[in-house]
Amino acid sequence: MSLNEFELIKRYFTRQNCRAEILQGIGDDCAVVRIPTDRELALTIDTLVAGIHFLADCAPYNLGWKSLAVNLSDLAAMGAEPAWITLALTIPHADLSWLDNFQRGLFALADQYSVELIGGDTTRGPLTITIQAHGFIPHGQALRRSGARPGDLIYVTGTLGDAVIGLDLALGRNTLITSGDRDFFLERLELPTPRIAAGIALRNLATSAIDISDGLAADLGHILNASGSGAVIHLDWLPRSAALAKLKPPWEKIISGGDDYELCFTLPPERQNLLNAAQISARCEFTLIGEVTAAPEIIWLDSNSQVVPLNNSCFLHFS
Amino acid sequence: MSLNEFELIKRYFTRQNCRAEILQGIGDDCAVVRIPTDRELALTIDTLVAGIHFLADCAPYNLGWKSLAVNLSDLAAMGAEPAWITLALTIPHADLSWLDNFQRGLFALADQYSVELIGGDTTRGPLTITIQAHGFIPHGQALRRSGARPGDLIYVTGTLGDAVIGLDLALGRNTLITSGDRDFFLERLELPTPRIAAGIALRNLATSAIDISDGLAADLGHILNASGSGAVIHLDWLPRSAALAKLKPPWEKIISGGDDYELCFTLPPERQNLLNAAQISARCEFTLIGEVTAAPEIIWLDSNSQVVPLNNSCFLHFS
Repeated sequence: MSLNEFELIKRYFTRQNCRAEILQGIGDDCAVVRIPTDRELALTIDTLVAGIHFLADCAPYNLGWKSLAVNLSDLAAMGAEPAWITLALTIPHADLSWLDNFQRGLFALADQYSVELIGGDTTRGPLTITIQAHGFIPHGQALRRSGARPGDLIYVTGTLGDAVIGLDLALGRNTLITSGDRDFFLERLELPTPRIAAGIALRNLATSAIDISDGLAADLGHILNASGSGAVIHLDWLPRSAALAKLKPPWEKIISGGDDYELCFTLPPERQNLLNAAQISARCEFTLIGEVTAAPEIIWLDSNSQVVPLNNSCFLHFS
Repeated sequence: MSLNEFELIKRYFTRQNCRAEILQGIGDDCAVVRIPTDRELALTIDTLVAGIHFLADCAPYNLGWKSLAVNLSDLAAMGAEPAWITLALTIPHADLSWLDNFQRGLFALADQYSVELIGGDTTRGPLTITIQAHGFIPHGQALRRSGARPGDLIYVTGTLGDAVIGLDLALGRNTLITSGDRDFFLERLELPTPRIAAGIALRNLATSAIDISDGLAADLGHILNASGSGAVIHLDWLPRSAALAKLKPPWEKIISGGDDYELCFTLPPERQNLLNAAQISARCEFTLIGEVTAAPEIIWLDSNSQVVPLNNSCFLHFS
């Protein structure tokens, strides 16, 4: 059976819109929305390209989930509450089973946050998925990269380094891992949890935030560049999952591995007493990993407080 | 010389944002904007894929222009005033001359409407350009596809059929055309004019509107489907450029050729007296081409009011 572009959109991507601010969803030249007057609008667009950001044989359900997760993660890093998305989907041909699984993964995550699909474009070509996500922030409460100040404490949510091990597994590079741990690492790679609740809990609390998509070294680097500061990081304070701790990967791998989609944020020490309540509403752990400094560099320390010379490598397109 | 992703964005795509509603542009996890309280937000996303929507050797300046034009055209069809865009650009490698010309074409058109680039994603992969455009509409004044009623008059802006001749030329299919006309047709294909001023002038006037991207037959069809109606179209009323009139292409070619980016709209006859003023502020001509009917079909008439059996073909992905 073959579907044309409009039938395909109708069958897989058109659902009843329930959010009151959506005046026009899929089906006209534009979507039309009304923004609550006490809110700013945050927006972010991300593309996943087959063979670059995911393996061509990635399960379409996971791909649907992840394409949305990476965008919601950017909203989380800004302290925004997700509202709606648009989807520009380029596919080589209309594979109905693939499309069905892709949309199931996408909407499984979307439904967790009452996120609605309000527009898009479906085209033929090499598999490429672009999503733009939109969310709301109370006036003046956006979490920016530029607010870190020397003396601020540096935290991350969840655990680091799991996704890069998942990538090894997906590439068939590591075969000594037990099957339970395999599933855990692959899930961390392909079904990441955007830290939306954490981002919202950190409004008016964190001085800066970013999501860790390119690895801690690179993404903390963005905060420090934007803030004109540096950092001291204690490597053995980095939160690691039980599965990762067993593997004892080199530090470089943990700090440069991408795709964790945890948040990294900074906090003035005097606000530390507010973190417990935030952690509870964030439904994930916050771990102190170091401190912002004035000198514009990252110093990595081992458990004896000795400087470890690490290569701050990260995933850069075109580098 | 080689640039990484961030250097590339900084060099070619980061400019000072001047619009007051932009609180955060390029350079953080999200852009953040404030919407005027008396406005609704219209948004539209469109992808152009190399080899599908444009020839791989298309001049990058023209491609930058056109990628934006097709999105602004959707805003125009909704009656929206453009405000900002995001750009998801996937390129096989960082060709600096290509990038420079691409951004020059993009910003040449953007500057005409004070449209600012507030975010994006630059990735490596097969050449694919996705732009999301955002614009403002006064509350309740969006021009939808669904408002056409039997008895309404049907109009189009500008002239039809030029872009499809331009495509023939780009493909080397038509070599008998004089060089002045060649330039005209190629410009109509690659540097289309989004009918922003027309869309704004048609607020509170047109009962429905759409932009003609897939050909008159297909796009008028969308209006009629959404409105539950049909149409009678007088073929010899269709506006043709002087260059096109010389060629006398078959009617099928004019009504099914895409890429014109003119508007098609409907108007109750009692509002005809308001069209002249609207046409002046639209800075383009409106041409009456037919009438909305109750029966759900398009009837094409020749100059003797005889029915012409035309194949309502159009450009459909995956069909």
